[in-house]
Amino acid sequence: MPNPIRIFDTTLRDGTQGEKVSFSAEDKLRIAKRLDEFGIHYIEGGWPGSNPKDMAFFEKAKSETFRHAKIVAFGSTCRSGNLPEEDPNLKALIAAETPAVSLFGKTWLLHVSEALGITPDENLNLISGSIATLKRHKKEVIYDAEHFFDGYKDNPDYAVSTLIAARDAGADVLVLCDTNGGTLTHEVSRIVEEVKKAVGSTAVGIHAHNDAELAVANSLAAVYAGAVHVQGTVNGYGERCGNANLCSVIPNLQLKMGRSCVPEEQLSQLMRLSHFVSELANLAPENRQPYVGKSAFAHKGGVHVSAVIKNEQTYEHIRPGQVGNSRRVLVSDLSGKSNLVYKSEEMGFEFDKSSQDSSKIVQQLKVMENEGYQFEAAEASFELLVKEMTGKAPEFFKLEGFRVIMERNGNGESRSEATIKVRVNDQIELSAAEGNGPVHALDAALRRALCEFYPEISGMHLQDYKVRVLNEKDGTGARVRVLIDSASDGKSWGTVGVSENIIDASWKALSEGVIYFLMNQEKASKPDIIYTAQ
Amino acid sequence: MPNPIRIFDTTLRDGTQGEKVSFSAEDKLRIAKRLDEFGIHYIEGGWPGSNPKDMAFFEKAKSETFRHAKIVAFGSTCRSGNLPEEDPNLKALIAAETPAVSLFGKTWLLHVSEALGITPDENLNLISGSIATLKRHKKEVIYDAEHFFDGYKDNPDYAVSTLIAARDAGADVLVLCDTNGGTLTHEVSRIVEEVKKAVGSTAVGIHAHNDAELAVANSLAAVYAGAVHVQGTVNGYGERCGNANLCSVIPNLQLKMGRSCVPEEQLSQLMRLSHFVSELANLAPENRQPYVGKSAFAHKGGVHVSAVIKNEQTYEHIRPGQVGNSRRVLVSDLSGKSNLVYKSEEMGFEFDKSSQDSSKIVQQLKVMENEGYQFEAAEASFELLVKEMTGKAPEFFKLEGFRVIMERNGNGESRSEATIKVRVNDQIELSAAEGNGPVHALDAALRRALCEFYPEISGMHLQDYKVRVLNEKDGTGARVRVLIDSASDGKSWGTVGVSENIIDASWKALSEGVIYFLMNQEKASKPDIIYTAQ
Repeated sequence: MPNPIRIFDTTLRDGTQGEKVSFSAEDKLRIAKRLDEFGIHYIEGGWPGSNPKDMAFFEKAKSETFRHAKIVAFGSTCRSGNLPEEDPNLKALIAAETPAVSLFGKTWLLHVSEALGITPDENLNLISGSIATLKRHKKEVIYDAEHFFDGYKDNPDYAVSTLIAARDAGADVLVLCDTNGGTLTHEVSRIVEEVKKAVGSTAVGIHAHNDAELAVANSLAAVYAGAVHVQGTVNGYGERCGNANLCSVIPNLQLKMGRSCVPEEQLSQLMRLSHFVSELANLAPENRQPYVGKSAFAHKGGVHVSAVIKNEQTYEHIRPGQVGNSRRVLVSDLSGKSNLVYKSEEMGFEFDKSSQDSSKIVQQLKVMENEGYQFEAAEASFELLVKEMTGKAPEFFKLEGFRVIMERNGNGESRSEATIKVRVNDQIELSAAEGNGPVHALDAALRRALCEFYPEISGMHLQDYKVRVLNEKDGTGARVRVLIDSASDGKSWGTVGVSENIIDASWKALSEGVIYFLMNQEKASKPDIIYTAQ
Repeated sequence: MPNPIRIFDTTLRDGTQGEKVSFSAEDKLRIAKRLDEFGIHYIEGGWPGSNPKDMAFFEKAKSETFRHAKIVAFGSTCRSGNLPEEDPNLKALIAAETPAVSLFGKTWLLHVSEALGITPDENLNLISGSIATLKRHKKEVIYDAEHFFDGYKDNPDYAVSTLIAARDAGADVLVLCDTNGGTLTHEVSRIVEEVKKAVGSTAVGIHAHNDAELAVANSLAAVYAGAVHVQGTVNGYGERCGNANLCSVIPNLQLKMGRSCVPEEQLSQLMRLSHFVSELANLAPENRQPYVGKSAFAHKGGVHVSAVIKNEQTYEHIRPGQVGNSRRVLVSDLSGKSNLVYKSEEMGFEFDKSSQDSSKIVQQLKVMENEGYQFEAAEASFELLVKEMTGKAPEFFKLEGFRVIMERNGNGESRSEATIKVRVNDQIELSAAEGNGPVHALDAALRRALCEFYPEISGMHLQDYKVRVLNEKDGTGARVRVLIDSASDGKSWGTVGVSENIIDASWKALSEGVIYFLMNQEKASKPDIIYTAQ
């Protein structure tokens, strides 16, 4: 049985160096707890002393219990000229009271002379002096050899001598960093093998960046060559192009290379972990992200769809459930009728592939996709469309008109108001509401107008509202697509609207969200109805 | 000098299998022309016969001249039971009148029996019969061995026999496809080496998918092991997690492995090519995409910024200009004052790091970033903010108020109208305008109100309008960020607004776009003014 691999997560430190990635101290703590639960071995929390947010995190972490993970504080070797025991940076590392410290030092002579302005020997002394100090304070020391690969290619002997200095001062693991992310995979393989020979039995680790789109491959190559400690971030967040993406590294190691990283039952939480972190980072999850992306097991081409229905192994490299993902079949103009039929059956419709209806619907879908509609995330709108085209759409209300007014005065105060007129069973209802903005006001007015007829409407709420500008080049006259997720009782459904007018697009998505809800309420109370719940 | 590598682009075929990727026939033609100019050797246009859009593309392409590239039609081997000359699929391939054809056939016995339902020998006959037919029609034949790696791992002898059948029937290149994208890099290295030995001098190619986040590494590993033909897509678009990303493969091969792919002067157009394709695909460019992403050479951490200013090699793996990209220094709460100073100097401000102003601005930036502001893509708003906080902001007009009305009637007809009141030099101007939607109407009304005072305003226009919902979970009451790019005379500038009300957020970005324009007009006419144009 090969050695298990120790996973070192740096989402909270290197991850936050990514453009648009930012976490509050509370976010950081929530993520750390989640990573611990997932089975990560080391969680690097930040650089104490570099900013108040990181300080606050370490303060909070002191009173928390972590089951698997060791919290790690990150910092640089002692500054030249300082005594290690008096160096403010080392003191901050010690004061963070973490069981482990990751300490970075220079490998590359270019940096030793240009960035630090010291001699090669002085650099070796800084490395060993700093590590010895931390060891005296009983820290586990993870030594990050910055720019290791560039330094090694420039001067292999000196690069190795920095590792030997770290090892001899007591470092527990020697991490080879591809700081600039430009090293090729076959170079990583060769250099890790050579380093393994040079440093003896001390554990070697890898820290890769994705500037050449090779961070995952380089991490695996290092493990293949003998590394036992892998650093990376959730979703690959990180400076520039990001760090090695743990959401790909972990399943590759565990499912394909037989190197265990986290408890097996946790691996099936991988997609949830990925989405949890992207949510706290307030970044949209990347659909085509390997393993955990929404498209990772999505089939669009007709050939693939019909084959994968017969045997999943034909077009899927792992079972999606192993990482908590699932298969999706997409409806689009590229897809044949077999996708439409699969999709419709999923929703409880039965119509055969050769029917008139099916051709008509495929045609209509093509027209609407051309206008900018997408039903991939709006299955409720798709279902309503199919019902409408097959004459099975119920009418719960008819819109007689609405008006939205938004005013702003010279003091910057603004108000939004909507009035709406709907007809339900020949009864006219006019209502008005205010809101934070025009769409919010319209939503409130619609609910108010309907609640007399459909009091159950108070049981549904809007969960998510997204706006996408379709043809951005047309400025404010551009067409927009609005996606709305509505929810009730833990179930959620998506609707879509497209228009040059954001209020019109929002109206379509809003009203369809309500219609879909009412339709499913009705079904629940009349079990014999021809269409079935999703 | 090692062999150059032939690049085979399948953006127009495999790329469009990606979720949300869709091109019109005209888009396809524009992309093909652009790829040709860039120096790509083969451009796969689609699968003639699979859908009308692909047919239309090949029709259009017949009357076009391509300087470097050969247009390629894609299709499968002849259907079992058909005579090759009468097989509808092969006939469609021939009718497409392209100089080259890529033909895919089965390698994996699982697919031979499950998907085709034929014997292993029958499959070999389909491969050789189909290729021989295409060769009789003088086609260059690129044989795509589908699921090659999975098939090889299952049964290496049979997998190789399919290649031998293709080679002996006259295939010009044997492309090993990792169709499911699950193969590891060290497996690709080993298998390509073994295949090279088995097939003799016939050229070998690679077609990788990114399901294990290894597509780029696997493509390079294949070349390292002897492949001379690489298939991929611009930006890595493609089914599920996408194909090998040519925007990373090409610079890796050309700048790092010394294997030339495209003319040197074209490589510096790589970023433009990437953005061109993402624009036609109507997908936002991915900021952290290697080489061509906006963040690929963006520095945020204080340590990195100060080092990279001294020597670019310290934190950049290549010179950004080699691929048409450029360095950016980001302003954020993680960044120290040195970023702010660098940024401000870039804009022509001079203030020293230790000044009061600089601390005040860093504080204010933190507050605004907390509210959801981002200045990374809104440098004009950043400049206005700095001017405002240092008392140097000019006032071109004062808003006295506006009102936006949007109405929709029961027939689904809608209209949007805005009225606005502004004060310029104690003169009040009230104006009204209609538009496609509320923001468009407001934009038109503002311009109308100002044009009497600032007729030059007709020289600027809005170029791009983006909306991002920040806290999506709050439904229609969520906070939105609006980013607007305005342009004039080939220059463009970005502004940003954040609010719970989309009209308010749009107003801030709109009005700042106008103010920035007027400020720069004024500068142009008064060359001695203290702030300089960007």
